[in-house]
Amino acid sequence: MKKLVWERKDLLGLADLSKEEVELILETAESFKEVSSRQIKKVPALRGKTVVNLFYEPSTRTRVSFEIAAKRLSCDVINIIADTSSVRKGESLVDTGKNLEALKIDIIVLRHNSSGAAHLLARNVGVSVINAGDGWHEHPTQALLDIFTLKEKFGKIAGLNVTIVGDIAHSRVARSNIWGLTKLGANVCVCAPASLLPAEIEKLGVRAVTDLDEALKGADCVNVLRMQLERDERSIFPSSLDYFKEYGITAERLKKLKKNILIMHPGPLNRGVEISSEVADGKDSVILEQVTNGIAVRMAVLYLVSQGKEKYAFNY
Amino acid sequence: MKKLVWERKDLLGLADLSKEEVELILETAESFKEVSSRQIKKVPALRGKTVVNLFYEPSTRTRVSFEIAAKRLSCDVINIIADTSSVRKGESLVDTGKNLEALKIDIIVLRHNSSGAAHLLARNVGVSVINAGDGWHEHPTQALLDIFTLKEKFGKIAGLNVTIVGDIAHSRVARSNIWGLTKLGANVCVCAPASLLPAEIEKLGVRAVTDLDEALKGADCVNVLRMQLERDERSIFPSSLDYFKEYGITAERLKKLKKNILIMHPGPLNRGVEISSEVADGKDSVILEQVTNGIAVRMAVLYLVSQGKEKYAFNY
Amino acid sequence: MKKLVWERKDLLGLADLSKEEVELILETAESFKEVSSRQIKKVPALRGKTVVNLFYEPSTRTRVSFEIAAKRLSCDVINIIADTSSVRKGESLVDTGKNLEALKIDIIVLRHNSSGAAHLLARNVGVSVINAGDGWHEHPTQALLDIFTLKEKFGKIAGLNVTIVGDIAHSRVARSNIWGLTKLGANVCVCAPASLLPAEIEKLGVRAVTDLDEALKGADCVNVLRMQLERDERSIFPSSLDYFKEYGITAERLKKLKKNILIMHPGPLNRGVEISSEVADGKDSVILEQVTNGIAVRMAVLYLVSQGKEKYAFNY
Repeated sequence: MKKLVWERKDLLGLADLSKEEVELILETAESFKEVSSRQIKKVPALRGKTVVNLFYEPSTRTRVSFEIAAKRLSCDVINIIADTSSVRKGESLVDTGKNLEALKIDIIVLRHNSSGAAHLLARNVGVSVINAGDGWHEHPTQALLDIFTLKEKFGKIAGLNVTIVGDIAHSRVARSNIWGLTKLGANVCVCAPASLLPAEIEKLGVRAVTDLDEALKGADCVNVLRMQLERDERSIFPSSLDYFKEYGITAERLKKLKKNILIMHPGPLNRGVEISSEVADGKDSVILEQVTNGIAVRMAVLYLVSQGKEKYAFNY
Repeated sequence: MKKLVWERKDLLGLADLSKEEVELILETAESFKEVSSRQIKKVPALRGKTVVNLFYEPSTRTRVSFEIAAKRLSCDVINIIADTSSVRKGESLVDTGKNLEALKIDIIVLRHNSSGAAHLLARNVGVSVINAGDGWHEHPTQALLDIFTLKEKFGKIAGLNVTIVGDIAHSRVARSNIWGLTKLGANVCVCAPASLLPAEIEKLGVRAVTDLDEALKGADCVNVLRMQLERDERSIFPSSLDYFKEYGITAERLKKLKKNILIMHPGPLNRGVEISSEVADGKDSVILEQVTNGIAVRMAVLYLVSQGKEKYAFNY
Repeated sequence: MKKLVWERKDLLGLADLSKEEVELILETAESFKEVSSRQIKKVPALRGKTVVNLFYEPSTRTRVSFEIAAKRLSCDVINIIADTSSVRKGESLVDTGKNLEALKIDIIVLRHNSSGAAHLLARNVGVSVINAGDGWHEHPTQALLDIFTLKEKFGKIAGLNVTIVGDIAHSRVARSNIWGLTKLGANVCVCAPASLLPAEIEKLGVRAVTDLDEALKGADCVNVLRMQLERDERSIFPSSLDYFKEYGITAERLKKLKKNILIMHPGPLNRGVEISSEVADGKDSVILEQVTNGIAVRMAVLYLVSQGKEKYAFNY
């Protein structure tokens, strides 16, 4: 069997990828995971390459994870945070991208509040673009690290029952997880108040329910989304306490299930809103392992798009 | 003939430099340009040196360009952006500079809103100072990359007809270009509404006109300045649309000239204000090549002042 | 005699340390000082380690000093400044720390506005924590660089008469200096207006006086604290001019003493508030040498906690 070679210059989302491409990323991440446990946590794989973190939304967690991943590959890293950039001077995303390309940088890691921003940028520049979250659309590396963690714990993804709980309608993490997990053969159930369930979500091949106990029945893992309380002023729930009562993941609720469920959360935690501290810090929680795996997954993605870009440049 | 050796610890402006010094920077930049097209875009020339980007005005473009240039020379780079610095605590520029010197750093890249700030700092510290823009005074590396691009395109500077269009009165880019270009024998014409032409600008050896068509006649290159619409609230023109009509560089206007003109712009572009998208993205535009050349020029300047500082320290 | 080996994973304050531990840091700093005077100011001691500057209060001076120290040891450095971090999303300090630990970073340099923050963090994570200032509590590396500078000038600390002048009540610099200096056998006198002298300060083994001339009598060194005029709106003194008159260190005042006194100040200076320019820039001032020594001291601390962490992990 011929081994798959990565041929894309970008990673924009999991919707576009084949099952084999997702698996290639996971395998590559596996081989990079060990680097972070060495005494000298550094490999020369991408020495002399420049990675730009171009963040139009603040996200220290994602920025720091990519920055560490890039530095462990020996890249140079440049941070551009929108508030202090020429964005304020009204330059378009494409113009900013073309300027970065002219600086002979290699990879742009883009966080943007508009869905589709990463695709737009990728079409217009020859450098690699990694989507680090675009609007409500995709956050592929988050989903990949979730899936990587699942595979590490269960050995395989096919046949797993994964429940995602939270604001599905506005969650790029949910979307990328759905695309990735269903591709690899998992059974995905999404659970939210009716107002936070997108109309035709079931067309993506998932089961949608509004009752949390029903959603948890038979689940191998529950991925608890952060309630983005700060995203807008509109109240979806009278208060976060009400949300916690109906949709919070608590030890009492889990006890009823007669089965251990793996607990995941993309962070940062709203303790007492979508999850109780007892569960978040409990023995079935792999929330911090997700963070650790994020480095391996992002090293893999940086490495693969870098390979892909060379092929792209060659065929261009 | 004895080869010129760089002896200055600083690069403060092009007004101070001899023709030979400008040429030395251009030649050095030429030899560094190739580094950015390598697989491993890095040379060990300044390993173990520390460059501080000390920016009292936000300018992501210039900061990023210097940061990349320094890292390709293997420098360590420290960013200090004024908003978060002890500037707020009222420390003077000279005290900040002396503190940086005490940290045994090697080069300060200074962006400041006051004309003369770089000169003031350079007189008071033993480390190298590179002026990355001071008020309306000078922005020497921008002019050097403009001149480098011209030389690359035309083979020489002497005898070239270069027109600079825009807010000449408040432009450090214009000032540095005028000093550099006239030194190397170019014929410089500046063009702006009368209110944006400094009173005695012709004493700098340039032709000043208010009519754009006249300014473009016979030009080999037009360097289109950004309208700093955000610099103050005073309206110079009723609206940016009015400016575009009278001073915007458009394809229609250029077509009348029966000659191809090289199009330059220091960026970021105000599309539809000082330049049309058709021209900015057209075949005679070298705007993105300017960005690329900025890295080579800044590597050259970092390298030369670093050599100069050693001589300075030796004679001190 | 058996040589002392550093066994702590953290540096949280000088109150906790033994005399021998303080001396070990000073000796280690001595051996690192020479690195910053080399042509290539870099040693590979901590290559592949990641240092995170986690700053919940702005402090460019301290951040830059740690960043340079870490880079001279070949560390990778990640800056997290609170304003742009997930702090805003309400994540607790401990959760942020655990997340950083999960990223397999090695050292957190923490600046926090709450006294005890560094201790809290250190108890909850396996990575090293260096206290870079917590509330009014401790700022151990500042005191260590002060003591290092004293030792360099006088050859020893035991028996020295050191006077600290300023807002003793709200100064972590004063507190750390008191603990460090008394441990090494210096005689410490603190001097402030009565309202800025903590009630039971003498229990720390120092002499407390309100009259500056009395406090300076017989002193070998005066460490002049910065008046934190911006810390709160409450006026302690009618105006900074009044403070200067009563507590400012001026040449006239010093002349009366018939003895040269070494002048120290942690920076940044309020010229004309707590110190006159004549004194700050005079021949007895070692204010800039303190800055230089800060790099050596911080290199030593980064190096030692890194050693300590390995022992800690081994015994854990």
